[in-house]
Amino acid sequence: MITLYTAATPNGWKVSVALEEMQLPYTVVNVDLSKGEQKTATFKAMNPNGRIPIIIDHDGDGLPLFESGAILLYLAEKTGRFMPDDRRGRSLVTQWLMFQMSAIGPMMGQANVFYRYMEKPIPLAIARYQNECRRLFEVLDGHLAHHEYLAGTYSIADMANWCWVRTYKWSGISIDGLEHLRRWKNSIEARPAARRGVEVPHKLEPEKVAKAGKKLI
Amino acid sequence: MITLYTAATPNGWKVSVALEEMQLPYTVVNVDLSKGEQKTATFKAMNPNGRIPIIIDHDGDGLPLFESGAILLYLAEKTGRFMPDDRRGRSLVTQWLMFQMSAIGPMMGQANVFYRYMEKPIPLAIARYQNECRRLFEVLDGHLAHHEYLAGTYSIADMANWCWVRTYKWSGISIDGLEHLRRWKNSIEARPAARRGVEVPHKLEPEKVAKAGKKLI
Repeated sequence: MITLYTAATPNGWKVSVALEEMQLPYTVVNVDLSKGEQKTATFKAMNPNGRIPIIIDHDGDGLPLFESGAILLYLAEKTGRFMPDDRRGRSLVTQWLMFQMSAIGPMMGQANVFYRYMEKPIPLAIARYQNECRRLFEVLDGHLAHHEYLAGTYSIADMANWCWVRTYKWSGISIDGLEHLRRWKNSIEARPAARRGVEVPHKLEPEKVAKAGKKLI
Repeated sequence: MITLYTAATPNGWKVSVALEEMQLPYTVVNVDLSKGEQKTATFKAMNPNGRIPIIIDHDGDGLPLFESGAILLYLAEKTGRFMPDDRRGRSLVTQWLMFQMSAIGPMMGQANVFYRYMEKPIPLAIARYQNECRRLFEVLDGHLAHHEYLAGTYSIADMANWCWVRTYKWSGISIDGLEHLRRWKNSIEARPAARRGVEVPHKLEPEKVAKAGKKLI
């Protein structure tokens, strides 16, 4: 059994999508970001950075593991699924997983901060992050023009990028004209496990997201 | 033999430090960011995101691999060094590697953009990123108070975080009072391989960095 500390955000969904896809049994602890529950001493004893998601694998060593990208690698290794065994295959997956961790996630996160959460709008900063996100989406689109999934077959790299890309409207980014990205996005949306994963811990309530977002600035 | 496409930036150094630490033979291709050499069609055929570093392992499959975090994992797996074999040990390394990829790197990068490269200063944005970086440094400091290195013994996670943290002055972030972080930083600086790595492809010239930075906005 795995315990998942999470909230309804792209980084949280990455792990619930993976757990659903891998058919691993798990229980959910809903961390209320609008109440700052991720900043309590108890929570920070598990992740000193005060961020969801965290997992505890009770069939493993029972210790907390944080950083969604590290959790995805752990789960893929544990199950032997959604990441190839050979060195090249693994590298392709980690390459596109790192692209999400270092670029798609942080840049969409900053777009959200300036577009959604700041009291006083700074047009230059909004434009900077929305333009950079569109550029990153075009990188994905160009790659997906020649590949069904990011690393060949469906992998944790697709789960990670999809959980962010699907929220493009919230970040105010257009995917017009990016037909390969749209095809890929739709094909993951059609997976029942992925759909279940992004409803953990509960369906998205825009007001709650906005309130939680303001606390994250 | 490995070919490394790089430039004098923290993400580039991560790979040259690892190659030096692992004593792997490599040749360097100096990519001039101030001339936009990372945006040429030839370069983007290797990394569609148009970013250094890239490696080609001629003793492996001879294909380009991008994203510094993925390259570090590849090199650690190839050599069996600077990342433990057991699942828990590997997870600790990937956890702190992901912390660098998703937080330290992107946030220091944004601090640099607003503090160093923007024509018109936006005080709110400068403060936002410098404060967030200081918070992240405090997370590292708190962890290092109880651990000699981030994941127990010296690993690719230390190399990755150190290559960014050591540039704290450039980002305008103070490390005053963070004595555990300073102790850790100094202990890595004392390693000859690490020192050699951060002089690849050449010693830092501040004017050139500023010029290259402006091109990255």
